[in-house]
Amino acid sequence: MGKFTIIGERIHCISPAVRQAMDARDPEPILQRAKEQLASGATYLDVNIGPAAKNGEELMRWVVKLLQENCDNVPLSLDTANKKAIEAGIAVYNRTKGKPIINSADDGDRKSNIDLAAANDAIIIALCSKSGVPADNDERMAYCQDMLEHGMSLGMDEADMWFDPLCLVIKGMQEKQVEMLDFIRQLKDMGLNSVCGISNVSNGMPREVRPIIDATEIAMAIYAGLKAAILNPNNRRMMETIKSADVILNNVLYADSFLDV
Amino acid sequence: MGKFTIIGERIHCISPAVRQAMDARDPEPILQRAKEQLASGATYLDVNIGPAAKNGEELMRWVVKLLQENCDNVPLSLDTANKKAIEAGIAVYNRTKGKPIINSADDGDRKSNIDLAAANDAIIIALCSKSGVPADNDERMAYCQDMLEHGMSLGMDEADMWFDPLCLVIKGMQEKQVEMLDFIRQLKDMGLNSVCGISNVSNGMPREVRPIIDATEIAMAIYAGLKAAILNPNNRRMMETIKSADVILNNVLYADSFLDV
Repeated sequence: MGKFTIIGERIHCISPAVRQAMDARDPEPILQRAKEQLASGATYLDVNIGPAAKNGEELMRWVVKLLQENCDNVPLSLDTANKKAIEAGIAVYNRTKGKPIINSADDGDRKSNIDLAAANDAIIIALCSKSGVPADNDERMAYCQDMLEHGMSLGMDEADMWFDPLCLVIKGMQEKQVEMLDFIRQLKDMGLNSVCGISNVSNGMPREVRPIIDATEIAMAIYAGLKAAILNPNNRRMMETIKSADVILNNVLYADSFLDV
Repeated sequence: MGKFTIIGERIHCISPAVRQAMDARDPEPILQRAKEQLASGATYLDVNIGPAAKNGEELMRWVVKLLQENCDNVPLSLDTANKKAIEAGIAVYNRTKGKPIINSADDGDRKSNIDLAAANDAIIIALCSKSGVPADNDERMAYCQDMLEHGMSLGMDEADMWFDPLCLVIKGMQEKQVEMLDFIRQLKDMGLNSVCGISNVSNGMPREVRPIIDATEIAMAIYAGLKAAILNPNNRRMMETIKSADVILNNVLYADSFLDV
């Protein structure tokens, strides 16, 4: 199995500093976050420009070129509800280091993002939900199968469909965690790729508790078969855990210095 | 599923302070380690008096009474190659808080410790090995089945047989970790209890790395189905991870203060 794939989440317009930099087309705050994430082990960077109804195409083009020209063609995950902005980003995207990811489709209103990925030879993150929280893994699997069939009917390679089990928050849905982990295992047993936003599980917890819960859950999820996660690679405990998991699963050869690499 | 069971490993004659206290029948160093471990979340305390060929019976009686009389009848795991010392310990053991554990049998030279457990209504830790390292999980399972049959033929309840997959060291047997985790899952699927000495996996690693690897592996092992482990409950990262795992698996109800409990 390959090394665990990290998609850095920190270039997100929910952050006031990023929002401001995007509005002002100010490269430095964005490049700084990019470099910090890559230095800590991110492979992909997620670029979330929000709904971006206005000027989304021009903004996405600007961010994609900015990041790839300054960070050795880093592969990107394009994250917006604005389809034209995604197409504009992909039009200027350099594939040397990997295909673009479109973040994300589901089996409901956003199903057509699978068509967008198929038309643009992109990877799609496909949430196993339709509207709201799936009741159980049978429902998750029904959405997964439906999206898989749809993607394959459009000529997609199944390896380019990364299924997201939908991480649920512990505070409120504590009894749903094992089910979610077991779903990741099901995906692995079917030979499908999985991805998730792990920090959803600790939403609403005290700030000092969150990385501890997140790191424990990601260790479990990686053993279950998780291929990739969208997370903050600048969280030390999380990265130590992921590097340890890669050693335990024999994805990377152990060296005494493995945490520093 | 019940809360994860911690067997505190710190009363072990390999520690010079413990060795000296045992030799001198000095209660304080032993009681201090007992109280520290119980305060941090241990349920059982392991008492390792070594081979104890000389005076083993008297020593085990003394330690068992010392710990139980001063620590509210704490349940104990009796750990020595001296069978008469184990019997002597059990003869004075108070079962109010749980049966004694005998640590340990295997399917080779130490198989008769299963007989000892059966004769004394004790829990047995049963290593799934005969001599040396099992080649694969088929071999582990053959030993497990053989010991299970033996115990049941002696009238043991299968719940009192805790099977140890034998944790292997990453430095040297890196490719064997997933197999070991998968074996824990097999035991769980069969409805059998599992236990292990998790810190074996990080043997020989730099001191600061060990708890990081150990904590990552125990998170995976608990998700796989591990029931109990022999470990140092005074390692903070390990305990934070185990408490988080109990929350994720819904073994304990989440509260914002769960790490302090």
